[in-house]
Amino acid sequence: MNKVGIIMGSTSDLPVMQEAIDVLKGFGIDVEVDIVSAHRTPEKLFDYGKKAHTRGLKVIIAGAGGAAHLPGMIASLSPLPVIGVPVKSRNSIDGWDSVLSILQMPGGVPVATVALDGAKNAGILAAQIIGASDKNILDKIIAFKENLKEKVINGAKEINA
Amino acid sequence: MNKVGIIMGSTSDLPVMQEAIDVLKGFGIDVEVDIVSAHRTPEKLFDYGKKAHTRGLKVIIAGAGGAAHLPGMIASLSPLPVIGVPVKSRNSIDGWDSVLSILQMPGGVPVATVALDGAKNAGILAAQIIGASDKNILDKIIAFKENLKEKVINGAKEINA
Amino acid sequence: MNKVGIIMGSTSDLPVMQEAIDVLKGFGIDVEVDIVSAHRTPEKLFDYGKKAHTRGLKVIIAGAGGAAHLPGMIASLSPLPVIGVPVKSRNSIDGWDSVLSILQMPGGVPVATVALDGAKNAGILAAQIIGASDKNILDKIIAFKENLKEKVINGAKEINA
Amino acid sequence: MNKVGIIMGSTSDLPVMQEAIDVLKGFGIDVEVDIVSAHRTPEKLFDYGKKAHTRGLKVIIAGAGGAAHLPGMIASLSPLPVIGVPVKSRNSIDGWDSVLSILQMPGGVPVATVALDGAKNAGILAAQIIGASDKNILDKIIAFKENLKEKVINGAKEINA
Amino acid sequence: MNKVGIIMGSTSDLPVMQEAIDVLKGFGIDVEVDIVSAHRTPEKLFDYGKKAHTRGLKVIIAGAGGAAHLPGMIASLSPLPVIGVPVKSRNSIDGWDSVLSILQMPGGVPVATVALDGAKNAGILAAQIIGASDKNILDKIIAFKENLKEKVINGAKEINA
Amino acid sequence: MNKVGIIMGSTSDLPVMQEAIDVLKGFGIDVEVDIVSAHRTPEKLFDYGKKAHTRGLKVIIAGAGGAAHLPGMIASLSPLPVIGVPVKSRNSIDGWDSVLSILQMPGGVPVATVALDGAKNAGILAAQIIGASDKNILDKIIAFKENLKEKVINGAKEINA
Amino acid sequence: MNKVGIIMGSTSDLPVMQEAIDVLKGFGIDVEVDIVSAHRTPEKLFDYGKKAHTRGLKVIIAGAGGAAHLPGMIASLSPLPVIGVPVKSRNSIDGWDSVLSILQMPGGVPVATVALDGAKNAGILAAQIIGASDKNILDKIIAFKENLKEKVINGAKEINA
Amino acid sequence: MNKVGIIMGSTSDLPVMQEAIDVLKGFGIDVEVDIVSAHRTPEKLFDYGKKAHTRGLKVIIAGAGGAAHLPGMIASLSPLPVIGVPVKSRNSIDGWDSVLSILQMPGGVPVATVALDGAKNAGILAAQIIGASDKNILDKIIAFKENLKEKVINGAKEINA
Repeated sequence: MNKVGIIMGSTSDLPVMQEAIDVLKGFGIDVEVDIVSAHRTPEKLFDYGKKAHTRGLKVIIAGAGGAAHLPGMIASLSPLPVIGVPVKSRNSIDGWDSVLSILQMPGGVPVATVALDGAKNAGILAAQIIGASDKNILDKIIAFKENLKEKVINGAKEINA
Repeated sequence: MNKVGIIMGSTSDLPVMQEAIDVLKGFGIDVEVDIVSAHRTPEKLFDYGKKAHTRGLKVIIAGAGGAAHLPGMIASLSPLPVIGVPVKSRNSIDGWDSVLSILQMPGGVPVATVALDGAKNAGILAAQIIGASDKNILDKIIAFKENLKEKVINGAKEINA
Repeated sequence: MNKVGIIMGSTSDLPVMQEAIDVLKGFGIDVEVDIVSAHRTPEKLFDYGKKAHTRGLKVIIAGAGGAAHLPGMIASLSPLPVIGVPVKSRNSIDGWDSVLSILQMPGGVPVATVALDGAKNAGILAAQIIGASDKNILDKIIAFKENLKEKVINGAKEINA
Repeated sequence: MNKVGIIMGSTSDLPVMQEAIDVLKGFGIDVEVDIVSAHRTPEKLFDYGKKAHTRGLKVIIAGAGGAAHLPGMIASLSPLPVIGVPVKSRNSIDGWDSVLSILQMPGGVPVATVALDGAKNAGILAAQIIGASDKNILDKIIAFKENLKEKVINGAKEINA
Repeated sequence: MNKVGIIMGSTSDLPVMQEAIDVLKGFGIDVEVDIVSAHRTPEKLFDYGKKAHTRGLKVIIAGAGGAAHLPGMIASLSPLPVIGVPVKSRNSIDGWDSVLSILQMPGGVPVATVALDGAKNAGILAAQIIGASDKNILDKIIAFKENLKEKVINGAKEINA
Repeated sequence: MNKVGIIMGSTSDLPVMQEAIDVLKGFGIDVEVDIVSAHRTPEKLFDYGKKAHTRGLKVIIAGAGGAAHLPGMIASLSPLPVIGVPVKSRNSIDGWDSVLSILQMPGGVPVATVALDGAKNAGILAAQIIGASDKNILDKIIAFKENLKEKVINGAKEINA
Repeated sequence: MNKVGIIMGSTSDLPVMQEAIDVLKGFGIDVEVDIVSAHRTPEKLFDYGKKAHTRGLKVIIAGAGGAAHLPGMIASLSPLPVIGVPVKSRNSIDGWDSVLSILQMPGGVPVATVALDGAKNAGILAAQIIGASDKNILDKIIAFKENLKEKVINGAKEINA
Repeated sequence: MNKVGIIMGSTSDLPVMQEAIDVLKGFGIDVEVDIVSAHRTPEKLFDYGKKAHTRGLKVIIAGAGGAAHLPGMIASLSPLPVIGVPVKSRNSIDGWDSVLSILQMPGGVPVATVALDGAKNAGILAAQIIGASDKNILDKIIAFKENLKEKVINGAKEINA
């Protein structure tokens, strides 16, 4: 069974993170969504990070804004690959704080960082990670990429029509 | 078989990228190293990206500096998970160009970006991706993290001695 | 015959890129507009870049946002002068990603970069490149610059009236 | 009894953090120094944060570089005032990552951030926090500020001599 | 008696700074609010800074935007701990000027800087400073943090309902 | 006849700009090198810009650092395509001032900007501009790009040897 | 007679620059307003700069946005003190281009730069420059500063009422 | 009598500020040099600012680094024109803190800011301010600019020799 854990620091991050949920469901991959705040629920953070791989999760996607410590702390606690989504939250300095506090992890504890507000890509990346050892998902990704191509080709036809 | 492809835009990136090679070898994971320049060998880039998953690679690590297009272009061509390492090359503007041109990929084509010159973390992340479906590697990662911990504990003993 | 190829990564870039189309038409230069996405249609990118100079194009204008690889990859594939237009797209970090991933090309593969959202200037620059060996177009540029001057002089008259 | 806990993510931060130790000792305030890595020793982090106020510490100074999560995570776990020192570590992007990932904490969990590599000021601030309710320390701070003044006045004399 | 002085450079900073007032009142701590402009009322600045500790204030919170000199100048004049709130004022360059002119104080004169527009955290930090030597306030902070936790837990329940 | 004018604001820019001279000579294109300072020799700037196209120049390359006005002012005065090279001069703020004051030209007056210290690319771009209407030069550029490719291929052989 | 020349690159800069006009008129100082574009009317720029001091102007205020060359070029041409106002124009990258291309002038050719969109301060500074040798204007500036103070004092009264 | 006050926050700023002293002496203008620290000698700052215009100074040049409050505070206290020199001090974040905390003054209190470490230009600007009403100094500035021109012309001769 393939399951991806999607967590975020606050319910206010949900509109951004929904794209990761949707794209994974589109690939037929189970998701489990939760609110885990590094700064407000540190015990839950600890528990989540320690047990994620024992509960059958394959990948964790963590979204947070500002001084965003959730992805890095989960990466500290779990041996699973952790994908970090920098969220451009209300008081963020144009998103730079979110990006740098997720991306610039010290040697030993990587976070696979995607673009600012790039939850859709986080979902695709999680699918690709599962696809690395699951032929069925890999084929779906190949089809997904073909579909991206067709949309652009059709867009091109319209402007040349 | 688990194999990770490690490519970089120039031989001058090798001192940085060597850390990814070393860490993967430490986990007992095969690596295949090559120079592929998005801007100077576009045909090789194409060929590499198109065939990587058919040759048995599970993950690709791509390092590049400046206007760094290698990781994103490989991600465009391959269904595999692609890890991007922004390299602070000689003429880079303090690394910002490398980071942003790898991180800020459009929706549909993710690159799992690590810290500036973070090749070691790219190697660990590749191992974690393989470990997501390989119990043996997962156990090695758990042991690796225990080892990180011990080093810090020992460092703490020294300054308190 | 003078013809300029204008390409962009997405139809959403068209409102910005239209200014390049308009200014070139104003100079009586033929344009050919297409959607080519480096990340979603890499084969089309390859084909376009490889053949552009054989189809009679003199200059290529490429616009893209975020981690903008289209201008640089076209410059990699074509011997023609390539003008890059950084587009401030929706998820861009204030345009810095677009600017740096187009501007900071490595030695050997230049992109003639214009200002953020500076498609109008891309069109003028393309005309100047053609004008470098076409007396008729050069004269039109000289007239165009005289016209810029007159508008400012007239604006000055109004505020002093 | 007044005691300040000084922690840092790595022994490599010690040269910077030593200034905090020295300045507090100069004020006659006890310090307790330890290495606590948010990413490599999360259990120790948890234990430290949870118990600091029960062990008689009054203030915690935490220094870290890059994606610096130590100060914020300690602030999440402890009710004590936490002073964060952004350290310009080797792979930091000019210190911006350290600064932003310490400063930009979400509402509810403050970190009292000082300047990049500003460990001396962290020590003084810790003394001022103790001095807020300890007349003896307050007087020492007043004397310390007088001393700063005299040094500048003497420097001025020299250049005018 | 515990009292916190809250000052700001202009009445236009009040909507941001109100959060500090509210949070301190919530902790049952007295506040004294005033407008003190470093650049427009330097004499008042001087007088305020020189006398604050003699009037029974324990902590000073100072908010200002742009080239924000108020927190640093008060820290120069007073032996009390000074908390600086960078305000993203109308003509600020995205808040960077406010942040850097408060944070980057020279050795000897610290300002405890919080996030951009982070007045709420300034209030909490002031309470923590008082709580460092006041068991009653410390207990209230512990309760406050429990409350933060519950809100997140409840939010999590809703999205999983 | 094909001739490229290469100007720079100061003799101290020559070490950077020499690469443009060398690459153009390698393509067999005549160059004319001069020092023209926008800020110190405004009359010479005016004269140079006004007459460049009448003296048979086809392209102008202008390099300057800091508040770099030379490329933009020449573009204001001449109908020729102007290539701007941002130079990272001694007092530049990490090159950002040079880049932005050359790149961000207003609508109507483009400067074809290359990477920071990217004089080599400026030379190649000038050759491409000439090659747009000169089959001989175009063929040399195609050969130049083949040569770039071979060097990378050979570099790859070495690391795999 | 005291007269200040106020110029700007475009009529679109007038709403920002009007504050300089108003503040100077308030001090009873004559102003002369004109549109001079460095890039579109280089001859007018030259003429203006060369003759300004011969026409009785004492100070020049120049406002411009983006790659803002007007203040620096006027400073190149005139021996008068030139005050530069960086304008946050429509296509500016958050104002950074305007600020850096005015501020970072090379040794020998200063521009007295004020804050982004800081035309009011440009007017006051021009008055202070005249006041340096005109007792009447100096007295008005002293009164102006008193007035600033009173406004703040009154604002403080209101929030404490 | 024309006299310029030159102050700086620390004797460590003297190597940078010396250029202002030298250039003013070259124009035959008296200078008075002193160390005044906004943060360490606030009383001296106050006294200096309040009395400068009564002691016959015409212009004040103030240099400081990091969170640089000296120029702005002097401008708050004195009706004279104040020139600010951002100094790239040891712990500065690449000079951005110095630049922004001097440049971004609020409406009402201008500081005439010059380039980072631009003390030479501060000296020239001070001379230009005096020259605005002193024909003798104005003529010296005109001669100074002629001299700048000749040096460039001679440099140009050498590279063309």
